This record gives sequence, C-alpha cells and structure tokens, in this order.
Amino acid sequence: MLDARLITLTTDFGTRDGFVAQMKGVILGINPRARLIDVTHDIEPFSVLEGALVLKGIFPHFSSGTIHVAVVDPGVGSKRRGIVLYTDEQTYVGPDNGLFSLIISDNGACKMREIQNPGYMLPEPHPTFHGRDIFAPVAANLSAGKPFEEVGPLVHDPIMLSIPTVKENAAGLEGAVIYIDRFGNLTSNIDKTMLTRIAGTVCVGNVTIQGLSRFFGEVPEGEAMALINSFGLLEIAINQGNAAQVLGIGKDEPVRVFWT
Amino acid sequence: MLDARLITLTTDFGTRDGFVAQMKGVILGINPRARLIDVTHDIEPFSVLEGALVLKGIFPHFSSGTIHVAVVDPGVGSKRRGIVLYTDEQTYVGPDNGLFSLIISDNGACKMREIQNPGYMLPEPHPTFHGRDIFAPVAANLSAGKPFEEVGPLVHDPIMLSIPTVKENAAGLEGAVIYIDRFGNLTSNIDKTMLTRIAGTVCVGNVTIQGLSRFFGEVPEGEAMALINSFGLLEIAINQGNAAQVLGIGKDEPVRVFWT
Amino acid sequence: MLDARLITLTTDFGTRDGFVAQMKGVILGINPRARLIDVTHDIEPFSVLEGALVLKGIFPHFSSGTIHVAVVDPGVGSKRRGIVLYTDEQTYVGPDNGLFSLIISDNGACKMREIQNPGYMLPEPHPTFHGRDIFAPVAANLSAGKPFEEVGPLVHDPIMLSIPTVKENAAGLEGAVIYIDRFGNLTSNIDKTMLTRIAGTVCVGNVTIQGLSRFFGEVPEGEAMALINSFGLLEIAINQGNAAQVLGIGKDEPVRVFWT
Repeated sequence: MLDARLITLTTDFGTRDGFVAQMKGVILGINPRARLIDVTHDIEPFSVLEGALVLKGIFPHFSSGTIHVAVVDPGVGSKRRGIVLYTDEQTYVGPDNGLFSLIISDNGACKMREIQNPGYMLPEPHPTFHGRDIFAPVAANLSAGKPFEEVGPLVHDPIMLSIPTVKENAAGLEGAVIYIDRFGNLTSNIDKTMLTRIAGTVCVGNVTIQGLSRFFGEVPEGEAMALINSFGLLEIAINQGNAAQVLGIGKDEPVRVFWT
Repeated sequence: MLDARLITLTTDFGTRDGFVAQMKGVILGINPRARLIDVTHDIEPFSVLEGALVLKGIFPHFSSGTIHVAVVDPGVGSKRRGIVLYTDEQTYVGPDNGLFSLIISDNGACKMREIQNPGYMLPEPHPTFHGRDIFAPVAANLSAGKPFEEVGPLVHDPIMLSIPTVKENAAGLEGAVIYIDRFGNLTSNIDKTMLTRIAGTVCVGNVTIQGLSRFFGEVPEGEAMALINSFGLLEIAINQGNAAQVLGIGKDEPVRVFWT
Repeated sequence: MLDARLITLTTDFGTRDGFVAQMKGVILGINPRARLIDVTHDIEPFSVLEGALVLKGIFPHFSSGTIHVAVVDPGVGSKRRGIVLYTDEQTYVGPDNGLFSLIISDNGACKMREIQNPGYMLPEPHPTFHGRDIFAPVAANLSAGKPFEEVGPLVHDPIMLSIPTVKENAAGLEGAVIYIDRFGNLTSNIDKTMLTRIAGTVCVGNVTIQGLSRFFGEVPEGEAMALINSFGLLEIAINQGNAAQVLGIGKDEPVRVFWT
C-alpha cells in the first residue's frame, strides 16, 4: 500500500448519539492510516431509497480505490445478508437491502460477495449495530489490504429496489418526485437522457412551468422553474425558495412533461 | 512521536456557527499533525448527562493514546475547574462538571489534574469560550507531546453526576428512561449486568412488552420491543418506528422489569 | 510543498444530500493530500450575511496557507463572478456576492482575481453546482501548487454587503441584532471597540439589562445579560436559556446601549 485509502460513510444514524464516531474508532483501530469522509448521516431513518440516491450522486466524484460504507439498515440482525460490492475500482460495504441498487444499475460488471468471514468483523457483533461491528471493520480490513476474495461467497442475486418507472406516450412523459433535498427542490425520476424531444411544459401539483431553465436565477425570485439538476435528473425548484413547502408537494407526486 | 494522535470532539455547540471549526483551527495551529474526529456537536444544549452518555458509548472503541475533548459547559467562565483526566491510556479534556462521570465510574484508576498552566492555553482566554481558548489548546499541546504532569495540580474530588439509580425488589427492577436517541429509541439506566434473572415483561408508560428481543426485526413493523442496546443498556424501541413519539414517552419515565 | 494544505468548507448545502461529499471527492481527486475541515454546512439557505459572519469568526484561528472555500450562492449559474481572494496569507474561494465582505473589511490589503481559467475547473461545470465543479477544484488546484496569478484577471470592485451601521449620540449607541446562534444568543453589530464609555444599560425589545457581564454564569439561571462574545461583538444572552425564544426577538431588532 502506497497511500492512505479513502473510506466514506453514509448512514441514517444522525450525528447526535456518537454512533458514527464509534464506527470511526473501530476503523482507525484496524487501519490507523484510513482517511474518513462523511457523506451524510442524515438519511431519513430507514429510507433505503434516499440512501441509494445519495450514493448514486457521490460515486462519480471519488477516485479508484475508494471504499464506501453505507448503513441504512432496518433489517439489522435479521437474516438479510451483508455484502461487499466491487465495481469500477470502487468498493461498497453494507446491507443487501437495495441500498446499492443504483450503483449496480449505473455501473457495468459488479462483483459481489456475502460477508461471512469472521476474520473481517469484530468478535461477537451486536445484533443491532452491524454498522460498527461488521461493516466498519470489513471496510477497514479491506482498506488495510485484506483481499476482497476472502470476504465470503459470491452473490448473484442482490436485492434491488423497485424504483417507480417513467411512462412515455405521444404527448410526453409521466414520472414522479422521488427525492426532496435540503433546499426543498423536488427531484423526479425523469433522467435527462429521457428528454429526447423539447419539453414544452412541465406540470407538478397544480403548477405548470414553461420549458426548462439552466439555473435558478433565470426566473424571478420566488418563481417556479424546471431544470436538469446535478444528479442529471429533472427537478422542480423555486428561485431562492423551498419548492416542497411553497407548492405543498411531497414524494410520489406525479411530474408530467409535455413535448412542444 | 511516531504517529499522528487522534483528538475527538464532543460538544453542544451545533455545527451552524463555526465554533467547532474555530477549535479545530486552534488545534491544528498548535499541532498540524493531529487527526480530528467529530463525535457529535448536537448534544442538547447544556445537557451534561447526555454528553456523559455519549462519551461512555464511544471510549471503548478508540485506541490507546486518543485524546477526547468534551465541552458541554453551562458554567463556562465561572469558578468551575477545567480538568484533564487520564485513564486506561486515553485522555479526556473538559470542564469538571460531571461530564466525565461515567468515564470515571466505568474505568478503574484515573489520574486527574486541574488545568492551570497558562503555557497549555491560548493567551487571554475568552470567558465564554474555554472550548476554543483552553480545552482545544490543552488537547493539542498534549497531542504534541507536552506532559500531562505539568497541566496543573492533581484533582481528587471531581464533580460526579447523580444518575438515577435502579431499584430492585423480589418482583423485578425499576429504572427510568435516561436517554432518547435519534431514532426515538428509549434507553434506560438498566444495565445488562442487572438482568440476573429472566425478564418476563418490561413495562413503560402504558405499554407492556413480553420478554426481550435481540434485534428490531424480530417483531412486526410498528410494534414495540425491549432489547439490550449497543451501550449495554435496556432499551425500548419500535421496529422501524420512533418509540418516543409513538408511545408519547420522554426522559425520566419509569421502566419496570418483572422477572418470569 | 512540504505539508498537506488545509482546505475549509463553509456552505448552505446541509449535510443530508451528499453535496458536500461530492465536493470533497473532487478536491481529493485533484489533491489527495489536502486536509479538509468542515466549518459549517448549515448556513441558512441563501443567507450570504450569515456566511460572512461565520467566516469572520473563523479566519483568525487558522494558520497561514489555509484555503477557505465558501459557497452560499443564490446566484449560481448567473453572471455573478467567482473569485479568489488572497489576504494575510490565507486564501478564499467562492462567489463574488458579498460573502467575503467582512474578510475584506477586517483585513488590510487584499488581492482578488476572477475565476476564468478553465484549467482550474472541472470540464463542463454544471450551472447549478459551481461549488463542486468550479470552487472545489480551484481550491484543490491552488492547494496543489497552481499559482494564484493564473486564476484570472484582477478584481478591484468586489460586491460588499450593506451591513447595518451603528448610530452614536451623546446618550449612547444604537445597533441591531445581526445574528442568532445555535444557543439563541443575540449577536449585535456593536463591536467592543465602539464601547468607548461605560455601558450603563443595554436595551433590546422590552428588556433592560444593567451593565455588562463577562460570562453566562454571572447572572442567575434564566436571567438575561449582555456581554462581549467570542466574535468581539455585544451579545444579549440568557444564562442556560435561549434568548431569541424567551425574549421573542429576531434579526434586525434594535439594540441600544446607554452610557452611565
């Protein structure tokens, strides 16, 4: 090993209780040279889809060799598997509950293994805290050079989330709001690659928006707009405002695009 | 010194105002090689007990040589002492107001010194920000190799929190909720070592729970359960739900265990 | 380069969505040796003044060579300039919208350049995320040794915030609340250097406070006091309470000091 390995952490643990710090202590106890990056610990509790979206957003910006630990794990302690996923020179460690669905669908070939080797875990893992006692030490051991091949047996049938699909007809597209970010911007499941024709209007709730903007300041303060956001997805936003609050729109609300 | 020393930070400062970053700037100005780990800055303002519990949760997971700075300090600027506590090869720096009570009671021999040596502090400490001007530089100086022995005189009578005690009778145990975590799980003061017989029922508020579970998914979604949590304490939780909100239960609520 | 360069991050991005982690991935991809310090990501969305105050609070505590990336950027994607500011051996990178006003007014000579050199940015910056695609890579490239001089042309007319001024008359001073911190403490725009005579009373809302305290515990629990806070500004606080909530006072509320 030449350089310190990056380990990122994505959880729904919050930052209040010290749970994440317990994981960090475990990692640095195994590999004192690991470099730790917090992605977020504020995933909505138990929201596997939200975790999957955040992971989809970050992976393209990290270098080869990065290890991502992700723990949104309502099934902790049950028979759900723990997995390590290796793809495009990055590694992912966490529960096999759909959290890595979008990593799997966005990347080509993936190799996955079920975590079974006790030599990669803490002794006697606590049944409610696999994040600390299994996933953190697996990541630390991998970062310290232990081989992926010995984690456990290959997995060929990972759990995949059922993400709502976008319907297309002659008039346009119908998708839905799947994520609301800190600013209240409404992210839909409509990918920029689906916009094969020119969007004349975008409708959500009882709001109709003319065409797409490129950035927030293109419309007056307080006005709604649609744009392609930094995830590459169609988003409805309000310039310097909170679209979710102002428009009274939540997750699963339909989003319609009508071609010109 | 061979390796970078870990310094952890536990405060009630929040992350909004840059106060913690001021502390980090001070530490890295004194010892640029220190490695900083945030435990939490979201301790409920002025809640020394909450800080003490979080510290109890993290210390077993950190290596020898770690220095923990903890600042929940409603008495800042008054005559309360600042202390450095050394035990089990880890070091703690902060106010002498009970914040280290559970470190002291969980560990054997402790050595404590009052912070008096101005050579370990910033010049002219601000009376409302000892975290930045005293505790951070003390930790940084210790991490850089300045000796514990010169911090100040020995302390033999640290302030200890009065933690509610657990009552035992023939029928069982009576404790109380002492902490509510981010998920709304209710942590009691009943330690797993007190469960010397089999728990038949656990009662809190007007809920009666049969026996102990090992993990959340052992009961149906939305149902209450009791288990030993990752602090080693009896906890009441709801599978994929917020027990504090759903059961309408707060701190200090009695928790009763009845033997079978 | 001898040592790892510190890069601090101050944004209104929150920590929920992974946006900050995307920036960190970009920085470490360009300069794997950079050391990252989070200042805060909880600036009130779009509040340039709040960001400016936090930056004013932190810079005195960081060493020469530190690079501060700050992104509170409601005008992202529009024609507002991106700038790099160099002063007192520290460097600031972010939008030219007033965010660095207090850095400029607190320091002497500043050199500023507009970010125009595409060799310092990611290719094809996303119009809503200059934090990730322009400001983060500019900071990373500077930290890796690329010269300030080649960032772009000199700027001589940075946007400055209009901060409310303090009025003085024979009886005393009249300022205003400009910032409310996590504890609900009310920070005014009255600098300690303006207190050229002895403050007899401090009035805010319908509260009158006698004289200045040095620290919170000087008055009984729950009582209001005025003091010079760790920013060097006059603050109204409540011992172990939330002054903003208890007194019902928000930003822009007048604060009056009457000389003895």
